[in-house]
Amino acid sequence: MTEIADAAATPPVGLFLIGARGSVSTCVTLGVLALRSGRIDRTGLVTARAPFAALPLADPGAFHIGGLDVRTRPMRETALDLGRLGLFSTELVTAEAAALDAVDARVGAGHFDQPDVPSRADGFERESVSKAGMAPRERIAAVQAALAKFRKEVAGGRIVVVNLASTEVARPVPDEWKSLAAFERALDAGATIPASTLYAYAAIAAGIPYVNFTPSLGAKVGAIEELARARRVPHAGCDGKTGETLVKTVLGPMFRDRNLRVLAWEGFNMLGGGDGATLEDPAHKAGKVANKDEALRKLLGETQELHTHVGIEYVPSLGDWKTAMDFIQFRGFLGTRMTLQFTWSASDSALAAPLVIDLVRLVDFAHRRGEAGALGHLAAFFKSPLGSNETDFYRQNQLLEEYARAAAR
Amino acid sequence: MTEIADAAATPPVGLFLIGARGSVSTCVTLGVLALRSGRIDRTGLVTARAPFAALPLADPGAFHIGGLDVRTRPMRETALDLGRLGLFSTELVTAEAAALDAVDARVGAGHFDQPDVPSRADGFERESVSKAGMAPRERIAAVQAALAKFRKEVAGGRIVVVNLASTEVARPVPDEWKSLAAFERALDAGATIPASTLYAYAAIAAGIPYVNFTPSLGAKVGAIEELARARRVPHAGCDGKTGETLVKTVLGPMFRDRNLRVLAWEGFNMLGGGDGATLEDPAHKAGKVANKDEALRKLLGETQELHTHVGIEYVPSLGDWKTAMDFIQFRGFLGTRMTLQFTWSASDSALAAPLVIDLVRLVDFAHRRGEAGALGHLAAFFKSPLGSNETDFYRQNQLLEEYARAAAR
Amino acid sequence: MTEIADAAATPPVGLFLIGARGSVSTCVTLGVLALRSGRIDRTGLVTARAPFAALPLADPGAFHIGGLDVRTRPMRETALDLGRLGLFSTELVTAEAAALDAVDARVGAGHFDQPDVPSRADGFERESVSKAGMAPRERIAAVQAALAKFRKEVAGGRIVVVNLASTEVARPVPDEWKSLAAFERALDAGATIPASTLYAYAAIAAGIPYVNFTPSLGAKVGAIEELARARRVPHAGCDGKTGETLVKTVLGPMFRDRNLRVLAWEGFNMLGGGDGATLEDPAHKAGKVANKDEALRKLLGETQELHTHVGIEYVPSLGDWKTAMDFIQFRGFLGTRMTLQFTWSASDSALAAPLVIDLVRLVDFAHRRGEAGALGHLAAFFKSPLGSNETDFYRQNQLLEEYARAAAR
Amino acid sequence: MTEIADAAATPPVGLFLIGARGSVSTCVTLGVLALRSGRIDRTGLVTARAPFAALPLADPGAFHIGGLDVRTRPMRETALDLGRLGLFSTELVTAEAAALDAVDARVGAGHFDQPDVPSRADGFERESVSKAGMAPRERIAAVQAALAKFRKEVAGGRIVVVNLASTEVARPVPDEWKSLAAFERALDAGATIPASTLYAYAAIAAGIPYVNFTPSLGAKVGAIEELARARRVPHAGCDGKTGETLVKTVLGPMFRDRNLRVLAWEGFNMLGGGDGATLEDPAHKAGKVANKDEALRKLLGETQELHTHVGIEYVPSLGDWKTAMDFIQFRGFLGTRMTLQFTWSASDSALAAPLVIDLVRLVDFAHRRGEAGALGHLAAFFKSPLGSNETDFYRQNQLLEEYARAAAR
Repeated sequence: MTEIADAAATPPVGLFLIGARGSVSTCVTLGVLALRSGRIDRTGLVTARAPFAALPLADPGAFHIGGLDVRTRPMRETALDLGRLGLFSTELVTAEAAALDAVDARVGAGHFDQPDVPSRADGFERESVSKAGMAPRERIAAVQAALAKFRKEVAGGRIVVVNLASTEVARPVPDEWKSLAAFERALDAGATIPASTLYAYAAIAAGIPYVNFTPSLGAKVGAIEELARARRVPHAGCDGKTGETLVKTVLGPMFRDRNLRVLAWEGFNMLGGGDGATLEDPAHKAGKVANKDEALRKLLGETQELHTHVGIEYVPSLGDWKTAMDFIQFRGFLGTRMTLQFTWSASDSALAAPLVIDLVRLVDFAHRRGEAGALGHLAAFFKSPLGSNETDFYRQNQLLEEYARAAAR
Repeated sequence: MTEIADAAATPPVGLFLIGARGSVSTCVTLGVLALRSGRIDRTGLVTARAPFAALPLADPGAFHIGGLDVRTRPMRETALDLGRLGLFSTELVTAEAAALDAVDARVGAGHFDQPDVPSRADGFERESVSKAGMAPRERIAAVQAALAKFRKEVAGGRIVVVNLASTEVARPVPDEWKSLAAFERALDAGATIPASTLYAYAAIAAGIPYVNFTPSLGAKVGAIEELARARRVPHAGCDGKTGETLVKTVLGPMFRDRNLRVLAWEGFNMLGGGDGATLEDPAHKAGKVANKDEALRKLLGETQELHTHVGIEYVPSLGDWKTAMDFIQFRGFLGTRMTLQFTWSASDSALAAPLVIDLVRLVDFAHRRGEAGALGHLAAFFKSPLGSNETDFYRQNQLLEEYARAAAR
Repeated sequence: MTEIADAAATPPVGLFLIGARGSVSTCVTLGVLALRSGRIDRTGLVTARAPFAALPLADPGAFHIGGLDVRTRPMRETALDLGRLGLFSTELVTAEAAALDAVDARVGAGHFDQPDVPSRADGFERESVSKAGMAPRERIAAVQAALAKFRKEVAGGRIVVVNLASTEVARPVPDEWKSLAAFERALDAGATIPASTLYAYAAIAAGIPYVNFTPSLGAKVGAIEELARARRVPHAGCDGKTGETLVKTVLGPMFRDRNLRVLAWEGFNMLGGGDGATLEDPAHKAGKVANKDEALRKLLGETQELHTHVGIEYVPSLGDWKTAMDFIQFRGFLGTRMTLQFTWSASDSALAAPLVIDLVRLVDFAHRRGEAGALGHLAAFFKSPLGSNETDFYRQNQLLEEYARAAAR
Repeated sequence: MTEIADAAATPPVGLFLIGARGSVSTCVTLGVLALRSGRIDRTGLVTARAPFAALPLADPGAFHIGGLDVRTRPMRETALDLGRLGLFSTELVTAEAAALDAVDARVGAGHFDQPDVPSRADGFERESVSKAGMAPRERIAAVQAALAKFRKEVAGGRIVVVNLASTEVARPVPDEWKSLAAFERALDAGATIPASTLYAYAAIAAGIPYVNFTPSLGAKVGAIEELARARRVPHAGCDGKTGETLVKTVLGPMFRDRNLRVLAWEGFNMLGGGDGATLEDPAHKAGKVANKDEALRKLLGETQELHTHVGIEYVPSLGDWKTAMDFIQFRGFLGTRMTLQFTWSASDSALAAPLVIDLVRLVDFAHRRGEAGALGHLAAFFKSPLGSNETDFYRQNQLLEEYARAAAR
């Protein structure tokens, strides 16, 4: 685990967070600040390992952070909540409090879609709530204005947009969004388009790379891919592979490679926090469940025998901790039935934060190299990777390492 | 999971089992018979999958089985015991009873080493007990005579020896066994040499491939490797990777690749049956524990922080079932401490049997292709692979698949 | 665990099973036969323990068994299926096959309610399906005729009816069923009344004790309690406490008595078999979930902080095995958050069968002693006990033991 | 869970801790201070529940705390360590820092026995190390002087001594210690007597109640019981029942009462912290393992079939957290084999602290009531209760509640 110092010549990067005051964003920001002050090490950062450490990636301790959110609760408070839950000591938050507040001051009011506006508007930016009815073109212009302002704060103007906002309600995607021209006509006509997709459009149209770490639609639309290729902008997504699905895509290939027939894979996820509260709503949950299940079914192959279930239960007392209990029954030689169970108890935010930092480094690097469109070599980071059909974690990881070795030459 | 029919031209293979009446051997034999009669499918056989299915491997349903054992309890009885424990229905045993008895009739008296002779000699072949004091050269000659006899029963004379006998007491290996000449002088001088190594020598010297599926010494001696290369005979080992260690070498790389620091990996294995009873003795247990721990430590890298433990507890009521409970604590970004636990409840015999069949097919194939010495491409099958330093299951598996694809051309 | 011989003078008992061909009934029947032939011991029978062993309870090996079912699949086939799943050896089934067939021959066609008739009528008694539309008084008369016939087969005429049929769809219970007179008017008027309640009425009106081991309505109606008291007939129910709920009502009091605040108790039940298939339907599941949750909430006390969840997932490959995974988070002194998880892997049928036998013995004994109405001292056997508010397993058990000691004097 | 205000008239109590700077003592002290300042509630205190709340027990928030220790690391530091591990927020420690320091200033140098002196004496009170060779009568005098001084600080002079020091090496207990006279002759002769027993003698001879919360010998000696009865002083012990053993004595009766035969109960305990480090030494571990196993075997009854194992593994990274994984296999009706597994993840210190407070309140109350000798009604608090043979948690708890109800009259 040798960590090679980042090349001095690497240009700085600005990280523009959508959902900048949520738990993951707070961990990203606290982590960047603590890397800068030397209070933590690079554990959890994939790009701190060989062969990535040999690439001229941006220095994460030097990230300039800003963004948008619809909520008003300060990051410092969220960070203290996470500390009280035991993710890290509140002492770390106290030490970085002033720096956190400085980032917080750079966060503007985000956008809602009508179906995603919560019934009770407490703790939400007044401006965000009022924006929920704005025409798409107006919203794109507003986002681009915020991006242009943020870009000026970064020497060299290199920025990356990362979507970490709450999962949106799953909605059908019109077929015409496959083409950029038709999609832009829909924009002009004031069609209802998910905020995550408007953000993606706004960033990419402005030549800024975009990462979707959530299950929301974002750039998973043919029109956006077309735009990205036209503008020579890379993007990546979607739905960060942090916990149970990571373990699934690690264990699944074992059964496949040993020719053991999985009969049942039942996963029960329990989580609290904002993410849990959002996912309690079946409309929000649908997208997440589909991604978690799809990754596994792709690996194991569809058989009559295979029964799978993905449950997500909101358990308020868990806060940002997530516990997943999975039960796997499989059939071996001579018809013998056997089981594997696992319990994963982790913080999704603490797992997600370093991956977000990795993605910013790798997407920025790809942008500098002139890569465009969905970056399939980043599949290892996602439950539902764009630009790749691979869901086997080790094959994904191998693709990523091969990319790094090739790029390092 | 396409299964391609075995090429009609593939020559038949004889499988000579050391420890032919144990649980694994019983499952191998019952499995071969049930494949032949069509009562079971090829689930659990790695070589039934692409790309192996494209190779002209021997037909497992046509294996001719024989061997040696020190115990007298008939395979049919052992098979019924396993059926009563729920591995498979006793109806299957009843259906194959006559065929099982026919194999049993071909099993001769095996050899003991003095330190491995159990205090109570009930249920042991009288001849085996008397052999415990024989000179090594005499024992080799006796084994070779049995092999020569068995070879004649197989059209074409292709046979493979597989060691499935109880784990021997771990003993220091004299440095001089690194060279064949010195080892043969020791043989001549009547030195004390583990039975597993004598079997390996006897087989390989006779030009017969040898597989060591146990943690016993077997061919893990420089002299035997030298012999194998000289005689152009392949061999493989050691210690089949069937259960907890398989899961360890599947999960370990996930922590490594995500740059998560493992702080503790505590594994508690519970098993009954003959294997459990043998391993209850600390002298027998030592070798197994070392292999299980080494595989993991190689993967994760030695760090000050890493604490590992491998416990093996004999729980008589489990019979042939084995339950392993592992607890893993790891540290992520921001110092967050998280855990993964798993419980693996499986039958080692049912998991081992198809791998033994796979190994026979692949070692015989390598022999026909003229390969010699330790077959490193078979690392995926072993806890402590000979001819390879790789313990990461997916990298091992990739090596194996690459071999198959190359050989299929 | 002294087992005192059953008093020779104890009169024999006939056991009339509703749902006589289901898994639980098959285990009850196979168990009674195997006790009779001495092939099994009394493990699992509560009444084999002191202080119950001192009571003149009926000899379970001498039970005469009959009943009704809507399905046609023979008990012998069901027993073989259970044996193949590993509950017990198929050899035991083969040994008792003729005796099982003899019981099967005494099973008549059961009754359906219209909402409980499955869409596909394969494997169902033709007569049962046609009965689904019969008027309640006719159905009662038909049941009573079957009971009268069965009674004649038992010397002394002592019989007990036990409901082991599939869980019915949960339906609202009209308020007027609280009174016997009003309920009987509803009967006369041809009202729609669940089959389980009609069976209870038919038995109790005929002076025959009734046990409801399922979550179906059965005798949980004021009118039936009134009838039972008037006719001096005892009854017991409902919903046998065999697995996860048993563990819940054993562990729950620990948290209460240690003043530890339970924050979350999330239970995930996975089961296959007929019970699982029935419970997959939300309408059938509702009653079961309510009973499981209610038992726990009564124990722990309702607090703002407490979150509970009871999930039931149908996992076909599990067959009659049931795995429950429970996750409990609790808060202790100084606000420390801690967890307990458990996994219960058991066969509900094998756990239920001896309790059914216990109940028959104890209800028959109570009948002989002149007890009438819901037997509250049997609360330990049920998730939702009639005649008692106690859900703490140890308090329930203490009540039962005190009853036995008082009755033994 | 009504909490009745403590009777105003209840006299204050001084709590004299042996091992006053360890993790449990630190949690006791922090807890008392936080109860006083209203920063925590009474969760975890058994005596906060009915029927104990009705007794005139001393106010825990008013406890005056002092004691002895052989270590010098300040309680404030230990408390911060526990906070950083996530037991509670470090903010709580900061808020109570001055009050913790004030208690710390009252802690004197404790005593070692020669076999218990650690090889490296860093962080140990110089005085304690020098005391390791003192004659028993001198040590008793020194302890009594410290107690007399402490007593003067408490209005009314009511104090209780609680042993929370590290587990001592298990040593054979001479038969003559059964009688007080012989024991006192041994004292006079300068015999080697464990520190825990000298502390017990010193306290009880001075008329001060003594509680042994550790597995060390303490008052588990006939001579001390004789002394306690003669001086009319109550005492209680030994080995607090906080975690895995609590769960064992809660679940064990379920199997017993359902007549299910336990075949295997394998418990694997993992813990870090000072307790873990001490228990890593087999000599210290022996006593603990014996208590944990004995409690279970008493419950289940000794049978040929029962296999039990208690493993304790020191896992440094766990710190004060303890994870126990238990695997239970049992046999039911029809010979069906089933399993229950549980994982208990808790802080022993956070579980122990409120029980220590409960014991001080109840032992002081008993002293005021004139009770003497081992208090059997406190069995629920201990793994190896003195004055009672009951190990079933619910029966123990019932005894305790009955005592409280009788005393409240």
